Amino acid sequence: MDKIRFFPPHEGISLSDLSGRCGAEIANPEFAGRIITSIAPLWRAAAGDVTFAAARKALPDLRNSQAGAVFVTARLAAEVPPGVAALIVADPQSAFALAAAALLPSALRPLPLTAEAGVSEAAIVHSTAVIEAGAIVEAFAVIGARAEIGAGTVIASGAAIGEGTRIGRNCDIGHAATIQHALIGNNVIIHPSVSIGQDGFGYAPGPRGMIKIPQIGRVIIQDHVEIGASTTIDRGALDDTVIGEGTKIDNQVQIAHNVRIGRHCVIVSQTGIAGSTTLGDGVMIGGACAINGHITIGDGAQIAAMSGVASHVPANVRWAGIPARPLNGFLRDVADANARAFGRTGKTKNEKDGEEQ
Amino acid sequence: MDKIRFFPPHEGISLSDLSGRCGAEIANPEFAGRIITSIAPLWRAAAGDVTFAAARKALPDLRNSQAGAVFVTARLAAEVPPGVAALIVADPQSAFALAAAALLPSALRPLPLTAEAGVSEAAIVHSTAVIEAGAIVEAFAVIGARAEIGAGTVIASGAAIGEGTRIGRNCDIGHAATIQHALIGNNVIIHPSVSIGQDGFGYAPGPRGMIKIPQIGRVIIQDHVEIGASTTIDRGALDDTVIGEGTKIDNQVQIAHNVRIGRHCVIVSQTGIAGSTTLGDGVMIGGACAINGHITIGDGAQIAAMSGVASHVPANVRWAGIPARPLNGFLRDVADANARAFGRTGKTKNEKDGEEQ
Amino acid sequence: MDKIRFFPPHEGISLSDLSGRCGAEIANPEFAGRIITSIAPLWRAAAGDVTFAAARKALPDLRNSQAGAVFVTARLAAEVPPGVAALIVADPQSAFALAAAALLPSALRPLPLTAEAGVSEAAIVHSTAVIEAGAIVEAFAVIGARAEIGAGTVIASGAAIGEGTRIGRNCDIGHAATIQHALIGNNVIIHPSVSIGQDGFGYAPGPRGMIKIPQIGRVIIQDHVEIGASTTIDRGALDDTVIGEGTKIDNQVQIAHNVRIGRHCVIVSQTGIAGSTTLGDGVMIGGACAINGHITIGDGAQIAAMSGVASHVPANVRWAGIPARPLNGFLRDVADANARAFGRTGKTKNEKDGEEQ
Repeated sequence: MDKIRFFPPHEGISLSDLSGRCGAEIANPEFAGRIITSIAPLWRAAAGDVTFAAARKALPDLRNSQAGAVFVTARLAAEVPPGVAALIVADPQSAFALAAAALLPSALRPLPLTAEAGVSEAAIVHSTAVIEAGAIVEAFAVIGARAEIGAGTVIASGAAIGEGTRIGRNCDIGHAATIQHALIGNNVIIHPSVSIGQDGFGYAPGPRGMIKIPQIGRVIIQDHVEIGASTTIDRGALDDTVIGEGTKIDNQVQIAHNVRIGRHCVIVSQTGIAGSTTLGDGVMIGGACAINGHITIGDGAQIAAMSGVASHVPANVRWAGIPARPLNGFLRDVADANARAFGRTGKTKNEKDGEEQ
Repeated sequence: MDKIRFFPPHEGISLSDLSGRCGAEIANPEFAGRIITSIAPLWRAAAGDVTFAAARKALPDLRNSQAGAVFVTARLAAEVPPGVAALIVADPQSAFALAAAALLPSALRPLPLTAEAGVSEAAIVHSTAVIEAGAIVEAFAVIGARAEIGAGTVIASGAAIGEGTRIGRNCDIGHAATIQHALIGNNVIIHPSVSIGQDGFGYAPGPRGMIKIPQIGRVIIQDHVEIGASTTIDRGALDDTVIGEGTKIDNQVQIAHNVRIGRHCVIVSQTGIAGSTTLGDGVMIGGACAINGHITIGDGAQIAAMSGVASHVPANVRWAGIPARPLNGFLRDVADANARAFGRTGKTKNEKDGEEQ
Repeated sequence: MDKIRFFPPHEGISLSDLSGRCGAEIANPEFAGRIITSIAPLWRAAAGDVTFAAARKALPDLRNSQAGAVFVTARLAAEVPPGVAALIVADPQSAFALAAAALLPSALRPLPLTAEAGVSEAAIVHSTAVIEAGAIVEAFAVIGARAEIGAGTVIASGAAIGEGTRIGRNCDIGHAATIQHALIGNNVIIHPSVSIGQDGFGYAPGPRGMIKIPQIGRVIIQDHVEIGASTTIDRGALDDTVIGEGTKIDNQVQIAHNVRIGRHCVIVSQTGIAGSTTLGDGVMIGGACAINGHITIGDGAQIAAMSGVASHVPANVRWAGIPARPLNGFLRDVADANARAFGRTGKTKNEKDGEEQ
């Protein structure tokens, strides 16, 4: 792969330095001075690359690896070929993520589009807006009255920041994104074409059609949140819509008015959360789920992809299916459906596949 | 909540005035001169706020309310605390919506982004386009040849209006929206990043791949329609795609070519409607539904969230599920699934939750 | 329908010319000199229009048709009224698509928004970008460092092409689209508000929240691909995300990192494909499907709308349902659900409807 085009390799970090940063131990100290310049997947990693192997299914690739170094668990260390440096660590994937961040720091934030510094002459910034020194506002971006943009933040070309909206420091607001009626913390990444803070979907049915209910709440987004492309987050009706610290939201997620999402949650693409629902901390929701309004999902609950959650979910459970229910019951139903469709002889394999859902 | 930042309170409307506008009766005439300046939810409403209580589950908050006034049904009026003005009305939510509109008129339409009047010098307007006096075209908007924009309409920054497209009066076209091949009525709100009028998805399979079928229809959007962020509406293939008067469409809805939607329908987020399907008037479709192509959904039909509608739906029914079927049958199946998953002892509670779906 | 507004009719093509281009035979040679200027659906086609009838359900409209000419199969030719020219061909829809392309060539690509030639003075093009002669870059578009744009390509207003991204010849990049970290072939159409090449959704869970895994792959899009509005395609994590030649992707589709899609596939709106999944050639996926990650879907497989595909799918099968399973088993389950919901007497009709899903 032509990596140079987008992410040039690092000038080099020694394995002793790199393993130290990631909390790993070099199995063979001879390799401590080896220089690493980039990252690659296990099957393709070459002399200058660091990679990782986390599970036994990686064994065939690990045994043939020609990587410069590989993060592995102690259990897999004996399988690392002689020329490859084994970096022993409890969680190889996390160590790899830290090494990758050290080797390719430019990949941790979106690349700038216009490569300008400061406020572009081709941007429109209202005279009452406050742009801290060190912020970048690219061409064709629009910053409304009384908006505030923190130092180190990049407002990409074509983005709009509405009246009174506050964006913290070291944030990235993607191309063509629209952020209104929002207070956003620090180190937040918002990808292109995201819409935040538009009216929630609120009407009162009346004799001559629906009456629009004014939506006067806000969107509060705490630090270290990442929000994927084309995701939509409505502002609150009378209260606020809140996204907690460190929560990661994928592409094309819909979050309705008054939803409150806790800290360090993960919400995968195309999931929708209806109005006034509350998620605790550490909740994980797979892709393409529909979450009912006015319910609560407890801390640490995990919802499998394509589930329909109609009612409250306790903390720390794993639920799946339409309607969402405990994973075991769901898997039995999946196995039954597969058995009917494939015939009993095909059942065992398909039960196993079902568990991956 | 820091309401001032986005929606400053009204200078004040007396309860006699406000109740008159909303068709409500002040239970205790002593309160007729009380001044109301803003709106709030029941649990947080303070002296200057009007709020509402529509259902018995609001009783605990109602009994503790410190609101200036509360819209209630006659049945709940006795529960209003002595210092709070009870405004008696048949439909408290609708009355509240009207009061909110009177108190916060700026919340009925999206706020402008660049606070400019007229056509921005930083917009591109084709010499043959017609912009009525009183329309606003913000910076970085693009208006194509022969397009028409009515008085009172705001084309937000970064929006594009294609060649020949007509937008009526008092409309709002959101930031980065793209409107092509469309005729749009009056008082239409289109939120950011909406795409209207691009090619429908039409191909004829051929021996050397798919042959693109030219899509020459239009999109017709009638008066008082509202369309949520990132919704996509394809233009017709040979006929038109039509959205009827007063219909409200939420975020991330997909409407394919030749779909015809009646008047005063509600379509919740992430629902998709396949090509050439027709919806009657007053149809309500929950979120995350998939509606088959070439079918008809009768007037007043209601489809629950996350349903898959494969075949024609009669008027005035309530259907749910995948495949969509009458609600009672669906709820029995949900109860069965829950009973299997939770065990019979958990059944009653979960049946009840299922009904909220 | 006011066709003139958007697509003026052709000056005229004779039936002998038109039928020759489409491989059809004029049943009655008397009509060879008849002049055709536009296209229309069967029920509305008038003297200057060509139309088509492909199936027996079109018979009532065919018998009443007043079209100038109609593409039909030999089997339906006898049903064409005397004044209408029958154009006999094996595949009437494909022939019609070719005729439509000849009569309305401007409908094969999106219309320009600003009607400018060359690079707009109101666009921002980095000094190191390469724009071939004959490319159009509309107002408020942004072209990043080292990007390349081929001849005949139109970058619509408000689109952004990121650093190092290469767009081939005769492509259309829609309004407000964002293309980064991508290499795109020739004759590719990308509709408005598409986001391509942003970070994939990759994190390693850590003790202090999730660690972002740098995403250094690319998006490779081969020739003749079309991508619908608001679709999102993430770049690869360590490898590439690939969309094969001739594949057509509808609106609001989500394609995660490292997905590899073969040639001439069709993916209908609102479907999501999770990371590292591979589709063969000629795969067809209906709307609103959720496709699991790390699985393979074989060449020519067809997945019905609103399916949940959890495990590998063999080549050339038709699967449906949640979980996806062979169509026959799915239809039996649908019939059972409908029978329970509608009562046995309604079963036959609903089984039939279910087959349309």
